[in-house]
Amino acid sequence: MTQVHQGVEASLNALRQKIDESLEEMIASRIDSGEVVELSGKVLLAGGKRLRPIMMCLSYQIAGGEDLSKIMPLAMAFEFLHTATLVHDDINDGATHRRGVPTIHETAGLSKAIIAGDWLFVQGYALGGQYNQDIVTNIANCCSSIAVSEFSQIDHIQNLRTSPEDYISIVKGKTAGPFSSGCRSAGVVAKATEEQLDALEEFGVEIGIAYQLVDDLLDLVGDEMMGKPRGCDVLEGKMTLPLIHSLTLSHGKDRERLADIINNFDDSLFDELIDLLTKSDSFNYTKILIRNHFDRALRYLEIFPESSAKSLLQTVAEYSTTRKL
Amino acid sequence: MTQVHQGVEASLNALRQKIDESLEEMIASRIDSGEVVELSGKVLLAGGKRLRPIMMCLSYQIAGGEDLSKIMPLAMAFEFLHTATLVHDDINDGATHRRGVPTIHETAGLSKAIIAGDWLFVQGYALGGQYNQDIVTNIANCCSSIAVSEFSQIDHIQNLRTSPEDYISIVKGKTAGPFSSGCRSAGVVAKATEEQLDALEEFGVEIGIAYQLVDDLLDLVGDEMMGKPRGCDVLEGKMTLPLIHSLTLSHGKDRERLADIINNFDDSLFDELIDLLTKSDSFNYTKILIRNHFDRALRYLEIFPESSAKSLLQTVAEYSTTRKL
Repeated sequence: MTQVHQGVEASLNALRQKIDESLEEMIASRIDSGEVVELSGKVLLAGGKRLRPIMMCLSYQIAGGEDLSKIMPLAMAFEFLHTATLVHDDINDGATHRRGVPTIHETAGLSKAIIAGDWLFVQGYALGGQYNQDIVTNIANCCSSIAVSEFSQIDHIQNLRTSPEDYISIVKGKTAGPFSSGCRSAGVVAKATEEQLDALEEFGVEIGIAYQLVDDLLDLVGDEMMGKPRGCDVLEGKMTLPLIHSLTLSHGKDRERLADIINNFDDSLFDELIDLLTKSDSFNYTKILIRNHFDRALRYLEIFPESSAKSLLQTVAEYSTTRKL
Repeated sequence: MTQVHQGVEASLNALRQKIDESLEEMIASRIDSGEVVELSGKVLLAGGKRLRPIMMCLSYQIAGGEDLSKIMPLAMAFEFLHTATLVHDDINDGATHRRGVPTIHETAGLSKAIIAGDWLFVQGYALGGQYNQDIVTNIANCCSSIAVSEFSQIDHIQNLRTSPEDYISIVKGKTAGPFSSGCRSAGVVAKATEEQLDALEEFGVEIGIAYQLVDDLLDLVGDEMMGKPRGCDVLEGKMTLPLIHSLTLSHGKDRERLADIINNFDDSLFDELIDLLTKSDSFNYTKILIRNHFDRALRYLEIFPESSAKSLLQTVAEYSTTRKL
């Protein structure tokens, strides 16, 4: 590891720690509210990469923002909202673990998990509500789009006719939305120009899509150290991009078999699934897409002057689109 | 019905209609977002007494507010948030109907019901986020307290040692909070004095408690025309005030039998339960409490000058604490 790289790592760790401390302080200040805070706080503080708040802090800085304390409540807002959606998603997916700890619905039951998610949403909105109308509207639109996309995702479960366009539309609302909305809002706080705001938003869209594509790949080629058993998405009937691509390119018996595996998936079919996806070159295709979205994301940053914050943002973007791949 | 009374009824109906129209317009403007809006909108617009927004509009007016359009988004915010909690509550209670229509989790499944509730929350926060920091904080505290109280309510399910203090604490957070927070916030928009704001808040607390006590009674002595089968709360293990009172006053075999009925309730035990509650005079006690909270609520309005809005608010308060009793 080069010295430059070590410096970047250290700066990112320092920023992540600052965000973690702010989140911890906020939970500590509310802990007398009892179990709802305890359970919600446990998921919030159990780790997580803090990608959204980190990118927001850096977006704020590259747009000229100088006082991190001015962006921190908003960065935290997005982490709270993100965690809220995770708690509710995990109910819907029947997930047993999140960030290495058992999910709330597993330990405390469905009712408390729904309410704990609601509580996390409230804190997110309260933090976001400190900002101006543009930002409040931005957050509201972002969260509305998440809900709309989640409905669409449910409707596409095991739907073999899901098109790449359907996929991108769902991902834009559910995954990319919070990145783009967060980065743009951070720019608003830094009083960025309209051109800069658009660039930050598009940067977030591209990184968000790339991030989701990486997630799709990790479900199939990642190892279990990532905290998620392999083939989870397939088991849940989620139409990820490698599946959509392979369904489009496969023909005859391969296509039939692939459809059959997707509709009746269990772990014993995993290797056969991988073979079919490899045959249609769907992993490579997905990797190319990831690279394209990543490159496009970086191009949106070109209008910002060089700075250490910009290098850090490029590094985080790279991390979020490569991870363990 | 006197002419004066007819005038009051007409004014209240006109106000309710104005609120309904605003809610309808908002849903219509978002209907292109698809099924999530359709399902959420159906519950929101299926009726409901609109007590919270009506009281907020009238609180705004008695505190000197003159332009209803300035309070309407906030009044709608509270109706959205209220409906959001109903959608999530109904999941937790396994309710099949709400406001006369099937619940979302019944028609569209658990996942969509959770997300639809989240969507309703978002709209509520977005509407509330148009107001100043005082109000945003007020809403956030109100919603946080709802979550905390709901946890407490779950923990007190079938807990025969639930005290009147536990009960009041839960009711203050879950039922009275939105009334008091709504009325106070309405006063803030009207630029009311600190004394007036406190009065509106306390008015809301008292009406909210009275409202919940009426709800408790209706579960036991209401008829099924109220839209709720009898004994629902008992079946769900909710410790309502008549039960808590009766458990406190009953002795020996009556106390044992009462405990047994509460822990193993089904409709065949309903008449016996009513007999035991009657023997301990728990219905009358609850009615006296309702009257006391109602009287106290009205006393908090004394500092406001007489006006038609004040008469209307008194009438709504009376309605909400008597209903069909």
